[in-house]
Amino acid sequence: MVQKYGGTSVGDAARIRAVADHIVRTAKSGKDVVVVVSAMGKTTDDLLRLAGDVSSVHPPREMDMLLTAGERVSMALMCMALADLGIDAVSFTGSQAGIITDTIHGKARILEVRGDRIREALAAGRVAVVAGFQGVSTDRDVTTLGRGGSDTTAVALAAGLAASSCEIYTDVTGVFSADPRIVPGAAKLARLSFDEMLEIAATGGRVLALRSVEFARNHHVPLQVRSSFTWEAGTTIDEEEPSMEQPLVTAVTHDTSEAKITLPTVPDKPGIAAKLFHGLAGKSINVDMIVQNSSLHGTTDISFTLPKADLQAGMQVVEELASEIGAEPPQADDGIAKVSLIGAGMRTHPGISATMFEVLAANGINIEMISTSPIRISCVVRVGAVEQAVLALHAAFDLEEDGTGN
Amino acid sequence: MVQKYGGTSVGDAARIRAVADHIVRTAKSGKDVVVVVSAMGKTTDDLLRLAGDVSSVHPPREMDMLLTAGERVSMALMCMALADLGIDAVSFTGSQAGIITDTIHGKARILEVRGDRIREALAAGRVAVVAGFQGVSTDRDVTTLGRGGSDTTAVALAAGLAASSCEIYTDVTGVFSADPRIVPGAAKLARLSFDEMLEIAATGGRVLALRSVEFARNHHVPLQVRSSFTWEAGTTIDEEEPSMEQPLVTAVTHDTSEAKITLPTVPDKPGIAAKLFHGLAGKSINVDMIVQNSSLHGTTDISFTLPKADLQAGMQVVEELASEIGAEPPQADDGIAKVSLIGAGMRTHPGISATMFEVLAANGINIEMISTSPIRISCVVRVGAVEQAVLALHAAFDLEEDGTGN
Repeated sequence: MVQKYGGTSVGDAARIRAVADHIVRTAKSGKDVVVVVSAMGKTTDDLLRLAGDVSSVHPPREMDMLLTAGERVSMALMCMALADLGIDAVSFTGSQAGIITDTIHGKARILEVRGDRIREALAAGRVAVVAGFQGVSTDRDVTTLGRGGSDTTAVALAAGLAASSCEIYTDVTGVFSADPRIVPGAAKLARLSFDEMLEIAATGGRVLALRSVEFARNHHVPLQVRSSFTWEAGTTIDEEEPSMEQPLVTAVTHDTSEAKITLPTVPDKPGIAAKLFHGLAGKSINVDMIVQNSSLHGTTDISFTLPKADLQAGMQVVEELASEIGAEPPQADDGIAKVSLIGAGMRTHPGISATMFEVLAANGINIEMISTSPIRISCVVRVGAVEQAVLALHAAFDLEEDGTGN
Repeated sequence: MVQKYGGTSVGDAARIRAVADHIVRTAKSGKDVVVVVSAMGKTTDDLLRLAGDVSSVHPPREMDMLLTAGERVSMALMCMALADLGIDAVSFTGSQAGIITDTIHGKARILEVRGDRIREALAAGRVAVVAGFQGVSTDRDVTTLGRGGSDTTAVALAAGLAASSCEIYTDVTGVFSADPRIVPGAAKLARLSFDEMLEIAATGGRVLALRSVEFARNHHVPLQVRSSFTWEAGTTIDEEEPSMEQPLVTAVTHDTSEAKITLPTVPDKPGIAAKLFHGLAGKSINVDMIVQNSSLHGTTDISFTLPKADLQAGMQVVEELASEIGAEPPQADDGIAKVSLIGAGMRTHPGISATMFEVLAANGINIEMISTSPIRISCVVRVGAVEQAVLALHAAFDLEEDGTGN
């Protein structure tokens, strides 16, 4: 089996010893164990600050070389802690573990997992401890996998080694029906489908990165999200079980990391939207929601959301296009938030969106944009209203701990 | 050319920027530059402390994995600082630089330097920045080269790449005629032979590790020891020039890191000494000086010096042998120090030792052990007398800054 431990789980010497103790229990039960570790706690932040102190220029290849020092430390320390408990463990860098990636530094994609050295270690009765977040490119350079990279390493290894399971240990006890910091009665979800987890990750749930869930779904690797602090049973994420009745709504999520750009009075003719979003893609800006009103007077408005960090770059693209096509100047808005309802049962129960809009209206919350998928409804609201929206929806759909979930 | 920068030279962001500035000057003069860096300042100590906090057991393979994180950080930061100054630089781990070693973790020996990737980088007009102290074993595991390892990396690369020169930058301005902390008038030596530098390194001079000097001598790589704080001309270490008159005495060194063991009343018959030193070698204890008095009454005394850190293990070996052969119990003495005179001119002027003994006697310093090589005389004295001995010898042989060196 594969067990992945995040940065807070290996944050200091005492945490590393606690995690080692847990690994030993699994290993002593006779299972082959592959451990994936992140860098300790704030290591990555410290290295980034050093890089800022040294230079204003950060070549991506060298950033990857720098940041991969973090997992190197935590995995070596983990092997030592395991040795202290009488377990023979051996550490592997991304390169040694055979994590082969493309050459895009900072957000490399895994092309192949050549797990020969890990298989040899397991066959010799050893625990394999692998550096998360890193690989080696087809050009033999050290690469990193970007945000959520250690989760992706764990899932890729579980797929490549045909592991029986993949446990993601973190600082929360599982995936909840809403953020417990906002909704005190939020329920821990025992089981989710990959599709639901994908929607949760895409709409603000921070437990797992979108990309690692996609990887797990595509390679049919069931995940378990658990706490390395309480070790209690967490959330299982697996294929949907077609025989089971799905709850209508599983979770309410929210996201305050996005901003909105509106381009008004766009001439309603073919090619404008294509030009706009092609320009944004060229700057690697991830656009999330897009809304275009139907045209009444030959012009239309286009609104879209994007990460706040990309707002300035996005505005530059849109301003150039606006002056080129003679549209009015675009408007930037960083005071928005997105609230979403997610549930596999929505596929067969189309009335959910109406209920959602009624709940928001009853609370005096104005909806600025709407987007839907077969198992999700998202509304953009003012950022100041988002907590109230989450609480109201969580209550309305009966998601609290002892609720029945409809 | 190869330039090596030690831990204090790259100790913080400001130091890294200063060193990058110096590298740029060399690179802009049109020379190919290969830079070897150590871990920043106290990084290695921090990692060792972490290892101690996590576990009482430290498998050598994992210690090497842990410690090699240090150079990874400093070399990536150095490349960023160079990029900030408009210089295209690329970092290489020991493995990427093709430093192939044997499989002895913690003190691996370099078997081969496959510098292909470095040559390619230089041919592309880039500065190559290489992690010191580390390599990859024939078993594909990460290894470290032990004490002075980064110097050895620099020398090995200079030899493997047929570099025009090898500059070792450190926190002192060169090799001195004695430790300037003891002898304020100690002179910086402009030039030394490899043999002299080997004797200086072996008898307490801490500027260069013995091993890197041996490597340089065996591969005919001239070294320059210089300061990365003042950048002034330092000390050149090269083959002896046979045409030149050698100074009688070049330097006075001292070493307080050793202890002495004496095994009294040993039966004077063949095989005892062999058994003793075979036993010590079996525990990897490095014995330095050995003195055995000539036998008058069928028994003799054997004394030898060894690192203080090995005193306990050494005593165990000697106590076992003593009870086996019926000798008196051995005596341990950690209150000794060694003072040495070094000079290539001693080969042709045998009177130096008499002068040395006279100087020590005139200062009331008792000599406990003596050993000599063709270009060195070492005396063991009480540790409390060693500073006086160094001062007196430095003055007697006229080694001060404006002295003539005889």
